[in-house]
Amino acid sequence: MFSTETTHEVDHTVAVPLGPRSYNIRVVANDPAGFGPFARAELARTWAGASCRSALIVTDMHIADLGIPATIQASLGDIGIAALIAVLPAGESTKSLENASRLYDELVKLQADRHTLIVGLGGGVIGDLAGFVAATYARGLPLIMIPTTLLAQVDSSVGGKVGVNHPGAKNIIGAFHQPAGVWIDTQYLSNLPTRELRCGLAEVVKYGVILDAEFFANLEQIAEDVLRREHGALARIIMRCCEIKALVVAADEREETGLRAMLNFGHTIGHAIEAVAGYDGPYKHGEAVAVGMVAECRLAERLGWIKKGDVTDRLVRLLERFGLPTRATELDTGRLIEAMSRDKKNRNGAIRFVLPRALGKVELTDSADVDDILTVLSA
Amino acid sequence: MFSTETTHEVDHTVAVPLGPRSYNIRVVANDPAGFGPFARAELARTWAGASCRSALIVTDMHIADLGIPATIQASLGDIGIAALIAVLPAGESTKSLENASRLYDELVKLQADRHTLIVGLGGGVIGDLAGFVAATYARGLPLIMIPTTLLAQVDSSVGGKVGVNHPGAKNIIGAFHQPAGVWIDTQYLSNLPTRELRCGLAEVVKYGVILDAEFFANLEQIAEDVLRREHGALARIIMRCCEIKALVVAADEREETGLRAMLNFGHTIGHAIEAVAGYDGPYKHGEAVAVGMVAECRLAERLGWIKKGDVTDRLVRLLERFGLPTRATELDTGRLIEAMSRDKKNRNGAIRFVLPRALGKVELTDSADVDDILTVLSA
Repeated sequence: MFSTETTHEVDHTVAVPLGPRSYNIRVVANDPAGFGPFARAELARTWAGASCRSALIVTDMHIADLGIPATIQASLGDIGIAALIAVLPAGESTKSLENASRLYDELVKLQADRHTLIVGLGGGVIGDLAGFVAATYARGLPLIMIPTTLLAQVDSSVGGKVGVNHPGAKNIIGAFHQPAGVWIDTQYLSNLPTRELRCGLAEVVKYGVILDAEFFANLEQIAEDVLRREHGALARIIMRCCEIKALVVAADEREETGLRAMLNFGHTIGHAIEAVAGYDGPYKHGEAVAVGMVAECRLAERLGWIKKGDVTDRLVRLLERFGLPTRATELDTGRLIEAMSRDKKNRNGAIRFVLPRALGKVELTDSADVDDILTVLSA
Repeated sequence: MFSTETTHEVDHTVAVPLGPRSYNIRVVANDPAGFGPFARAELARTWAGASCRSALIVTDMHIADLGIPATIQASLGDIGIAALIAVLPAGESTKSLENASRLYDELVKLQADRHTLIVGLGGGVIGDLAGFVAATYARGLPLIMIPTTLLAQVDSSVGGKVGVNHPGAKNIIGAFHQPAGVWIDTQYLSNLPTRELRCGLAEVVKYGVILDAEFFANLEQIAEDVLRREHGALARIIMRCCEIKALVVAADEREETGLRAMLNFGHTIGHAIEAVAGYDGPYKHGEAVAVGMVAECRLAERLGWIKKGDVTDRLVRLLERFGLPTRATELDTGRLIEAMSRDKKNRNGAIRFVLPRALGKVELTDSADVDDILTVLSA
C-alpha cells in the first residue's frame, strides 16, 4: 500500500509531500540558532513568502522555566522576525477555547495579519492549541511546530491535526492545518521526565507494528540506547516515525479514505481506557495506548489474523523494557465497551479496530464481536 | 484571465468547480420540499456519503418567525435526516466565539460526528457563524448554506469564507470551509426589507464592473423588474453573480494568488466607511460598498485608467436607481485614510485598491497616492 523505504538524508530532514502544503521536518541536536534560517526557508515556500516580520511563540511554563522560548525568540530576531512570547499554564486544561480566545486577543493587539508566524513550542497540548489558533486567525496563519516531548515529536506535531477540547468531548473543536515546518531538537528530550519519554515510546513502537517490522526489530536492538537518551538513537527513531507518519498523512491528509485510521492501532481500546480511568487518572495517553496495543494484538489472535504468541509476545517484551504497562484488568470491562461504542471510527453501530495481520501490517475491521473484546480486556 | 461565458442551465444550477470540494448552487422559486433531495444528492459527493442521518439547522429569530426553519426540517425529515433547530438572535453581534461555543455545546449533546450536517439558514451573519462551527467541529462537518438575503445569496454563501468577529477586529477568527451545496430560494426575498435588498444589489452591480460589462448593461435594462422582485429577474441576476463568484473562487480558493482580491472592488473605501461611521452606524455594508465603488472609479479616472465620466456616470446612475448612496462626504477623510491603511490587501505600507481599467475589467494597484485618495473622498 505504501512504500516504507527509508530515505534518510545526511541532514536529517524528512519531507512531508502534500503538494502545495508540503513541508520539511528537521531533526537536530542542540541547535537553537539554526531555527531562524530553517523558519525563513520553510516560510519562503508558503503564501507568507519572504514578508514575515512578526511572530507569536506559544509555549508553557515548564518550557519557559528552562529558558527555551528566549533562544527561539533570539533565533527569529536574527532573521528579522520580531517575536512575542505567550506563556500558558502546562497541562491538558490549557487546550481550551478560552485560551484560544486569549491568544486571539494577543494577535489583535499585535495587529497580526496573514504574514504573522505562529510557533507552537511545547508538547502536544501547546502544539494543538497554537495550531488551532493559527488555523483560525485571519483564515490561516503560517505555523511552525517545535515539539519538545517525544510524543509530540513523533506524533502530534506532524500531520496537521490541531484543536482544543470541549468540556464534554476531547479534541472535538479543531481543524486540519498543515505546518510550514517542524523543528525537532533532541536536546529538549534531556529534560523530559522519564514517564513522558516512555509515553512517547509507546507511539514509537506503534509505528513498527503498523508499517515497519524492520524498524520494530531495530527498536528491540537499540532500546537501551534510547532509554539512555543517546542523540543518535533518538534521532534515528524520530526520523523513522516521522517518515512513516508523513507517508500515511500524505496518502489520506484529511482522514477521508480510512488509510489514516491505521495510526489508530491500539487507540480504540487506549482511548476507552483513558475515558474510563479518567483523563487525569492513572493512565497517561501513551500508557493507555500500550495496554490497548497488547489487547488489540490478542484480539487479532482470536480472529485468527496472527498466530498466538509471536507478535504479541515480542510487543509485550518491548513495551516492558520501555517501562510501559501491558494490561489494565482492574477497569470495568462493561464501561470500556461502552466507551468504545462511541469511537469515531465506528460505522453502523459496530466497534471498529485497526488490527495486525502480521508485524508491520494492519487492517481496519468491524468483525470482532463483544465476547472476543471482553475476553482480551480480561487477559 | 477568466472565461465569463454564461452557462445557464435549464435547472438553474451553478457548478462551483473546486476539484474534490466541488459543489452546486441551486436557484429555485418557493420549493422548500425540494431541499431534502438536493441535500441528499450534494452530500453523496462528500465524505459524509449516504450515511448522514442527523443535522443542526442554525438560524435566527427573524427567519424562525417566518416559519421557514420548520419547512427545511420537514424536508430533511423526508430524506431520513433528523434535524434540530438552533435559533439565535438576529444581528451582527450574534457572530461571536461565544455563540460558536453554544453551538458546539448543542453538537456535543447531539453526539454529532463527521456525518452530521450543518445547515446555515439566514443572512451572512448566520452563514458565517454556522460555517465556522462546521469548519471547526470534529475537524469539519458537511455544510449546506440556505442564504435568505440577496447579499448572502450572491456573496457570502458562496466561496467558503466562514468566521466570527473578535471584539477588536471584524471577521478575524475564521477559516476556509467550502459548503457541500448552496440552496437559494428567491421566495425568501419577498420578505426582505427593501433596504436589505438594495444592499445586496450593491454587490450585484460590483460583479458587472469587475468582470462582466454585458451583465452591467443587462442590469440597467431590468433594474425595475429586480426592484419589483420578479422571480425571473432575481433568479437571473443571482445565477450570474454566483457564476462569476464561482469562477473567481475556483481560480484562487484560499486568497493566495491575489486573484480573489478583485472581489474587493469598492471595499477598500467601503470597509473604511464602515469602520469610521461605526458598524451599527448609518451605512450598511452594501451602502458603504456603493459609495466605495464610486470613489474608487473616480480614483481610476485620476490614474488615467478610465476616461472621466463614462463608467463612473453609468455606475452612479444605476446605484441611484437601486436607491443606494454614492457619496459619504460628511465623514472625516483623515480617519478614512487611517482605516484604509489597515486594509489586509496592503503590502509594504502602501494602500492597495482594485480599480477598473474598463467596465468589466479590474486590476490590483498600489499606485494611488494619498492626495488622489483625499480628492475622491471629498468629491
